[in-house]
Amino acid sequence: MNKRPIGVFDSGVGGLTVVREIQKLLPDEDIVYLGDTANLPYGDKSEDIVRTYSIANTEFLLRFNIKVLVVACNTASSVALGYLKSHYRIPIIGVIEPAAKGATYATRNHKVGVIGTNRTIKSNVYAETLNRLDSTLQISSRPCPLFVPLIEENFIDHDATRLIAREYLKEFQECGVDTLILGCTHYPLIMPALAEILPGVKLVDSASSTAKDLEQILSTSGMQNPGGKAPAHQYFATDITDKLHILANRILREGGEGPEVRFKEVSLK
Amino acid sequence: MNKRPIGVFDSGVGGLTVVREIQKLLPDEDIVYLGDTANLPYGDKSEDIVRTYSIANTEFLLRFNIKVLVVACNTASSVALGYLKSHYRIPIIGVIEPAAKGATYATRNHKVGVIGTNRTIKSNVYAETLNRLDSTLQISSRPCPLFVPLIEENFIDHDATRLIAREYLKEFQECGVDTLILGCTHYPLIMPALAEILPGVKLVDSASSTAKDLEQILSTSGMQNPGGKAPAHQYFATDITDKLHILANRILREGGEGPEVRFKEVSLK
Repeated sequence: MNKRPIGVFDSGVGGLTVVREIQKLLPDEDIVYLGDTANLPYGDKSEDIVRTYSIANTEFLLRFNIKVLVVACNTASSVALGYLKSHYRIPIIGVIEPAAKGATYATRNHKVGVIGTNRTIKSNVYAETLNRLDSTLQISSRPCPLFVPLIEENFIDHDATRLIAREYLKEFQECGVDTLILGCTHYPLIMPALAEILPGVKLVDSASSTAKDLEQILSTSGMQNPGGKAPAHQYFATDITDKLHILANRILREGGEGPEVRFKEVSLK
Repeated sequence: MNKRPIGVFDSGVGGLTVVREIQKLLPDEDIVYLGDTANLPYGDKSEDIVRTYSIANTEFLLRFNIKVLVVACNTASSVALGYLKSHYRIPIIGVIEPAAKGATYATRNHKVGVIGTNRTIKSNVYAETLNRLDSTLQISSRPCPLFVPLIEENFIDHDATRLIAREYLKEFQECGVDTLILGCTHYPLIMPALAEILPGVKLVDSASSTAKDLEQILSTSGMQNPGGKAPAHQYFATDITDKLHILANRILREGGEGPEVRFKEVSLK
């Protein structure tokens, strides 16, 4: 039993797809979320600067006495997770390992595709993790850098998004993958468009697989919140705009349920 | 006569379209350029944070003893120019006023359109400037937030870009503007696509109009570089990636002329 909150950070709102899954699976847990919106997007930036931002985000969340940290950003997980794990004492979960594990369970023909930001794909961390878990896999990777801005601009159900997606995903059709990892926490929002282009391909998103891994870690180490009161969910961002609230509420309040989510602004300088 | 360099900053590489025009019009001038790539894009961020970044950029360029500062970013010009002008003693030029002036010369039917980032359009600064210059103008504005990522990803000559552009520009066709201000220093790169959608409409970009205003300021105040040696052009960025060099060279070396441009990384923290 442990009543301390779970800390979650991302570069922006994409990590809220992970929070949504955590809330479904672990409804009694308190959550502190930080979106580093002043510095987003991380996906096209250098490794050094993404690591610097990740450390600042972690230090902020530690002020809330969190019991576990979820790095709900594929880019930060790709380049900063090792550093964070070796420098902080609490358990730290990224989104790469859970999604990679999910893909090894899902594939039948051992051909797995990975899509993500430029930085995530360039880091090669998905290919390395997948190969470590199952050395017989054939892996194809492709950066899809326009998906995040298209999603952020609500071009979710739009011909331009489908046109760009068809171009991005063409090589996966050609090489016959039966499983595709959505290696960015934004991508679950365009899952219908991706499923249409790749019929029969299993789409594995890091949000639900990360929530499952978190649930397992808490339960095996007896760290779950015993419940008994309404959970506290706090949302912080390093820069607040109208769009942030619109997107955050679209992700967290599917079907318009529950109270509206409001962010508080923090400076990490 | 004044041999000190011209300082130019932008959130990224878009400001290089201004540098390119300055180099054409003022080939003897030394230039120090700063792209704040660690913090780009500015266009969706809050006013406060864009102002904070703009001050840091200005302080950096002042170390080079610049004789004039060009804020080659529409978003920063929209929200930070007044502050910068009141706090620093050198002449400071933004990109809004030159483009607005250019549009007042260009229009015949007094109907002017403006496109830009979310932050630039929201600031209403183009409409205010245009109205101050000519109160008879009818002005329509529209944010086009996906153009910057599409350009950054080299989707310059692509059907998805034309599809998105057609959607963004539809209202300008309907209201019959004869002049459109490209209120973002990235946009000149997709000028052919925009011209195709709005045939007969005069497209005014801030790059060439800003270079013309700069030339006038230097010549009227006797601050031009007398020449006599090859000009020094220095390029700095707060975060360097491969893409930065590819894009920068595409903008600055049209037709592949001249030596390759290389950036040096600086930290403004």
